[in-house]
Amino acid sequence: MTQTADLTTLAEGVGAGDRRALARAITLVESGRADHREQAMDLLGRLPRDRQALRIGLSGTPGVGKSTFIEGFGLMLTGMGLRVAVLAVDPSSARSGGSILGDKTRMDQLARDPNAFIRPSPSQTQLGGVARRTREAIALCEAAGYDIVLIETVGVGQSETVVSQMSDLFVLLLAPAGGDELQGVKRGIMEIADLILVNKADGSLKPQATRTCADYAGALRLLRKRPQDPDGFPKALLVSALEGDGLKEAWAEIETLITWRKDHDIWDATRKAQAGYWFAEEVRLQMMERLMSDPALAARIADARKAVADGELLPAAAAAMVLKEI
Amino acid sequence: MTQTADLTTLAEGVGAGDRRALARAITLVESGRADHREQAMDLLGRLPRDRQALRIGLSGTPGVGKSTFIEGFGLMLTGMGLRVAVLAVDPSSARSGGSILGDKTRMDQLARDPNAFIRPSPSQTQLGGVARRTREAIALCEAAGYDIVLIETVGVGQSETVVSQMSDLFVLLLAPAGGDELQGVKRGIMEIADLILVNKADGSLKPQATRTCADYAGALRLLRKRPQDPDGFPKALLVSALEGDGLKEAWAEIETLITWRKDHDIWDATRKAQAGYWFAEEVRLQMMERLMSDPALAARIADARKAVADGELLPAAAAAMVLKEI
Repeated sequence: MTQTADLTTLAEGVGAGDRRALARAITLVESGRADHREQAMDLLGRLPRDRQALRIGLSGTPGVGKSTFIEGFGLMLTGMGLRVAVLAVDPSSARSGGSILGDKTRMDQLARDPNAFIRPSPSQTQLGGVARRTREAIALCEAAGYDIVLIETVGVGQSETVVSQMSDLFVLLLAPAGGDELQGVKRGIMEIADLILVNKADGSLKPQATRTCADYAGALRLLRKRPQDPDGFPKALLVSALEGDGLKEAWAEIETLITWRKDHDIWDATRKAQAGYWFAEEVRLQMMERLMSDPALAARIADARKAVADGELLPAAAAAMVLKEI
Repeated sequence: MTQTADLTTLAEGVGAGDRRALARAITLVESGRADHREQAMDLLGRLPRDRQALRIGLSGTPGVGKSTFIEGFGLMLTGMGLRVAVLAVDPSSARSGGSILGDKTRMDQLARDPNAFIRPSPSQTQLGGVARRTREAIALCEAAGYDIVLIETVGVGQSETVVSQMSDLFVLLLAPAGGDELQGVKRGIMEIADLILVNKADGSLKPQATRTCADYAGALRLLRKRPQDPDGFPKALLVSALEGDGLKEAWAEIETLITWRKDHDIWDATRKAQAGYWFAEEVRLQMMERLMSDPALAARIADARKAVADGELLPAAAAAMVLKEI
């Protein structure tokens, strides 16, 4: 794909909501090649900019039932006439080569739904490019007319913070804790959660799920109210992704929260702040890319960083020394 | 102060542990003037680099009894023959013109102790320079031979995260909660706390303090164990800064934690990672300073940021456009 005509066709396809065009466009923004990056920027510049999806960040550790939840939740939404896109963010896949969503067979009903679009995480990830790729994939899904973009991330590392910076709200999916041994929540995740869903509230696990939900509701009350929350938020709710219980209630809470934030000018203000944040990040990222594209300079920066880590130089002096050479 | 001879004298004074030299040196690193910055870098380059203090970050909302705690805790440490420096970090003082520590009269006993050094936060703060100024003040205190550097911050905004990135451990001071209305902890602070101290465990507040401490201990157990922690950490303890109760126990816990981290190569690894982080931050900060020092370019960046916030441009495209002009 090198022709401007191709990019025009691709942009039109995305704008018309064509899923194959959307998939091709995401592949383009995911590419690490310099010429693909140019084309991706060109493509993104051609898209309609007047469409907004509800962006929901979703996190949960492996085994918590995320795929089952997304399938159930997604089908409920498409059943309401909404179009749903699911994106995966997995910075760890750079090492493992794996994908969170695995193949789509784990959500085969949703994958076959014409109103749904599922995009597994790429098997190869450019370090530092996770945020950019995901933001641009979200922009593509919005341009393609999706009403909901679910951004799924696994509960490791910094990915939740990154995802929360590009989401309108953040949902944390938890499993019932076993007996006294309460399930640990990764520090920093509870801080960004707008809604905690305790899954597997079914069968023999129901009493445990109920206790776990009460425990987290208690822990949430220990945290100070945030200006972006109406009374009672963040909330902890019980769901059973397997039986479909609680999904409607979870959606109702999401709508309550989002309506309140829109009414209080928080939705727009947050989006603006996020855009400004990502602009500043892009300026820094592109400047660093420029610096590191010179092998001699990249080696110089690595040396300086090591000297700082070893205590031979202070950070400011080392940085000044490197920048003086440019 | 413009002579190289003066800087040599100043560096020697700091190295000899002279408190007046240390105070003058900190004033120099705090200055926003370009010529002072040059001199500060020069001075920092002349300091001994083989001295390490234990850096303790300390946070707590106003009214929790921080000054009383620091005075009692500091005097206990100097009583053990240790030299203690206290630094304040308050990014909000840029607006209010205030200082966390206020004048030293709130800790008059510690201020008069020859083995203590107290530095209130400056009344004027360069935005974005908080981290640099504090890091360099810490380096000066270490070079001056202090054994403990207490970095005090008020429980607002992002200052705790910044301080935790330059501390060996982080202590959170809390007040007993009143009745059912549990005191809210700012989200994100509990995540970085190594030790939670519930203060005012004295007189009529003792039962409440005991309950509050148990509540936070319970909340901490809900969070997943971090690789940098021995069993049982992070911990919640009761203290009475007023009566001096629990201070020895708090210090014993700090020593246990630090010894464990040193034995498990976490201390060194953390310091190296922090130094690398600050180097990368300095490279970004100094590059941005260079860009913003050109008024035309600074205006261009502000325009581009606004266009992004208003949805007219995507972050990557706007950043590329600005950087192309350099």
